[in-house]
Amino acid sequence: MIGLANIGAAATETVEASGGHHAGLILTLFVMLAAAKLCAELFTRLKQPAVAGEILAGVLIGPHVLNWASPNEVSNILAEIGVIFLLFSVGMETKPAAILRVGRSAAIVALLGVVVPIAGGYVFMRGFGASTIQALFIGTAMAATSVGITARVLSGMGQLGSESARIVLGAAVIDDILGLLVLAAVASAAQGELNYVAIGTTAALALAFVGIVGLLLAPGLTKAAPYFGRLRLDNEFFIIAIVLCLGLALAAASIGVAAIIGAFLAGLALAEAAEKQHDVHQQIRGITEFLVPFFLVNIGMQLNLSVFTELGTIGLALGMTAVAVATKLLGCGVGALNLGRRGALQVGMGMVPRGEVGIVVAQIGLAVGVVDDRLFGAVLFMAVATTLIAPPFLRPLYSR
Amino acid sequence: MIGLANIGAAATETVEASGGHHAGLILTLFVMLAAAKLCAELFTRLKQPAVAGEILAGVLIGPHVLNWASPNEVSNILAEIGVIFLLFSVGMETKPAAILRVGRSAAIVALLGVVVPIAGGYVFMRGFGASTIQALFIGTAMAATSVGITARVLSGMGQLGSESARIVLGAAVIDDILGLLVLAAVASAAQGELNYVAIGTTAALALAFVGIVGLLLAPGLTKAAPYFGRLRLDNEFFIIAIVLCLGLALAAASIGVAAIIGAFLAGLALAEAAEKQHDVHQQIRGITEFLVPFFLVNIGMQLNLSVFTELGTIGLALGMTAVAVATKLLGCGVGALNLGRRGALQVGMGMVPRGEVGIVVAQIGLAVGVVDDRLFGAVLFMAVATTLIAPPFLRPLYSR
Repeated sequence: MIGLANIGAAATETVEASGGHHAGLILTLFVMLAAAKLCAELFTRLKQPAVAGEILAGVLIGPHVLNWASPNEVSNILAEIGVIFLLFSVGMETKPAAILRVGRSAAIVALLGVVVPIAGGYVFMRGFGASTIQALFIGTAMAATSVGITARVLSGMGQLGSESARIVLGAAVIDDILGLLVLAAVASAAQGELNYVAIGTTAALALAFVGIVGLLLAPGLTKAAPYFGRLRLDNEFFIIAIVLCLGLALAAASIGVAAIIGAFLAGLALAEAAEKQHDVHQQIRGITEFLVPFFLVNIGMQLNLSVFTELGTIGLALGMTAVAVATKLLGCGVGALNLGRRGALQVGMGMVPRGEVGIVVAQIGLAVGVVDDRLFGAVLFMAVATTLIAPPFLRPLYSR
Repeated sequence: MIGLANIGAAATETVEASGGHHAGLILTLFVMLAAAKLCAELFTRLKQPAVAGEILAGVLIGPHVLNWASPNEVSNILAEIGVIFLLFSVGMETKPAAILRVGRSAAIVALLGVVVPIAGGYVFMRGFGASTIQALFIGTAMAATSVGITARVLSGMGQLGSESARIVLGAAVIDDILGLLVLAAVASAAQGELNYVAIGTTAALALAFVGIVGLLLAPGLTKAAPYFGRLRLDNEFFIIAIVLCLGLALAAASIGVAAIIGAFLAGLALAEAAEKQHDVHQQIRGITEFLVPFFLVNIGMQLNLSVFTELGTIGLALGMTAVAVATKLLGCGVGALNLGRRGALQVGMGMVPRGEVGIVVAQIGLAVGVVDDRLFGAVLFMAVATTLIAPPFLRPLYSR
C-alpha cells in the first residue's frame, strides 16, 4: 500500500530539512516544558525551590532515567537563549549604582571565590593521584560560577535588591573575567607554554568592555530613552531592549567573556530607562518564563549517572562536590564577612552553583586531552550537584 | 605559539557541541533580528507594511544577495516556534462564537480557494508542457494558504475582529484540512495508487480534532480558568497557556494537520478565559515580537534568485505568481461576495500569501520525484512573491 504513510514519511523528512511543521521539534518542547513545570509545581508545594524541581525534571526525563529526551540541538539553542534573557532581565531589575556601591566587596568575594576553590581542588585532586596539570584543570572547573541559578532563585523571591544579592551579581561579573584568565592560563600551560601577551590582551579587552558599557552606554541610554518613541515600530522599547541584549551578548562572546555577562550588562545599562515600562518587563518575562525551563532541564539532562558504577569514581564525584561546596562557601563567605554571618552565608551559598560553566571548563579539558572520561563524569556530577544543592539553602537564608 | 587562539578554537568546538556560550548562534540571532527591525522601521516610514519589510530583510541578508545568513537549524527552529505562537496569539484575540457565526461563508471561501487555484494552476502548467501529475502538484502548491502573514498584518492594524478577518481565519482552518487531503490524494496518485482508506481516516481525524477542541475543550477551559490560581507556580495562567499551545500544536501535527492550526485552536479555546489577563497578553506578545521576525526573515531567505538566469524559468515563475494571485482573489473573493466588493477583496487578498506552506508542498513534490529543480525554484518564487504582494494591498483595503 503506497499511501499516506509514505507521504507522511517523505513529508516529515523534507519538512524537517526545511524547518516546516515538525512534530519532533514540538514534541521535545512540550515534554521538556510540561515536565519542568509539573516538577516546579510539586517542589513549590513541598516548599522547595522551583529551580531545583526543574533541574530534577531534566534528570528524570533525561537519558539515564526515563530517556524521554536528551540534550539536543533544540534544547541547547533554547537553553542558551533562555539564560541570556534571564541574565538580561536580572540586569534590568538592578541599578548600576547599586552594584558599584558594593564593588569592593564584590571584587574580594570574586577573588577569594576563585583562589580558594582552585587551591582546594588542587590539593584534593593531588591526594587522589592526579597530575599537577590535571589538578589545576579540575580546580579551575571548581572555580567557575553559574550565576543564572542563584539569579533565578533570588528573582523569584523578590530579593535581587538585597545587599548580598548585589554582591553576588557584581562578583559574578568579576568571577567570570578572572575565571576566563585562569582558564586561558591553565589551558595554555597544559599545551606546554604560557602566552602572557594573549592573556594580557584578553584581560584588557574584558575590562574595557565592562568600562565602556558601564561608563558610556548606560548613561547614554538613560538620556536617549525618551526619544525611543520616535520610532514607528510597535513595541519599540522592547525591540531596542532585545536587540541591545543580543548585541552585547555577542560582543562579550566575541572577546571571550561569557555571553550572559554581556546580556547582564545590557540589562543594567537599560535598568533606569526601563524602570516604569511595565509592559516591557512583562514582555521580557514572557521570553524568560518560556525559555529558562529549557536551560534548567538541559542542565539536569547532562547528569551522567554512569559514574556510579565504580566505587572509586563515586568517591571522586562525591568528594569533588563536597570540596566544591566547602571552598566556595569559605572563600566567598570570608570575602563577605563584613555583612555578618548570615550575609556571608547568603553570598557564599549564592556562588556555589557551577551549572553549565563548570561543564564547559571540563569539556575544554577533555578537548585538550588533560581530562579523561572518568574525571569528566565526576566534574559533570559536581557541576549538576552543586547546582541542585544551593537553591534549597538559599531560600531559608534569604527569607526572614 | 600555543595559546589563547588554540584554546579559543578548542573551546568553541566543544562549546558548540555542548550548547554552551556560542557566538555563532548569537550572531545569527542578532543579524536576523536587527535587519528585520531596521527594514520594518523603514517600511513603516514609507507607509508600507512592516511584514513586507521583514521578509525583504530576509531576501537582503539571504544567500542570494548579501549572504550574511542562510536558513539554518537555528532560524528554522525559531521560525517554527514563532509562527506557532503567532497563530496562538491570534486565536487568543478571537472569540470562538465570532468564528462560528461566519462558518458557512468561511467554508465556501475555503472550498473555492482550494478548487479555483488547483484548476487554474493545472491549466497553466499544462499550457507550459507539464505532465498531468506535475500540473496537479503545482496546483496543490498554489492552493496552500499561509495565514500567518495576513494574521500578522491584521493584528498589527487591530482588525482581527472585523467580519472579513474572521472569515479569513475560519477559512484558513478549513483550507488547511482540505489542502491536507488534496495533498495526500495527489501525492499518493503520484506514486501510482490512491489510498481512499488512509485519506478518509485523515479527514475524520482532522474533523474530530476541530470538533473536540471547539465543543469540549473551549467551554471546559472557560469554566476551569477561575481555578488556575490554585497552582503555586508563578505566572500560572501564562504557563498553562503555552503548555496548551504546544500540546495542541503537537496533537495537530501528529494527525497530519498543520501545527499552527492546533495552536490557533488552542488560542481560541483560551480566548474567553484570557480576556482580562493583560499581563498574559503582554507575555505572549514578548514571545511573538521576539520570534516572528525569524519566521518572516526565514521566508525571505528562501527566495532563490537563480531562477532568473533563464528566460523560460522567469516566465514560468512570473506566470505562476500571476495565476496564484488571480485564482485566490477570484475563488475566495467570489466566496465572500455577500460582504460586498470591498469585503470580497479583503478576504481574497487575505488568502493570497502562500509563504512556507507552498514551499513545503513543493518540497514534498521534490521528495516524491514529481517536481524538478526548475519547477521547485519557480514555486519557491511564487510562494515568496505572493507573500510579499499581499501586505501592501491589505493595508489600504482594511483601513477606512
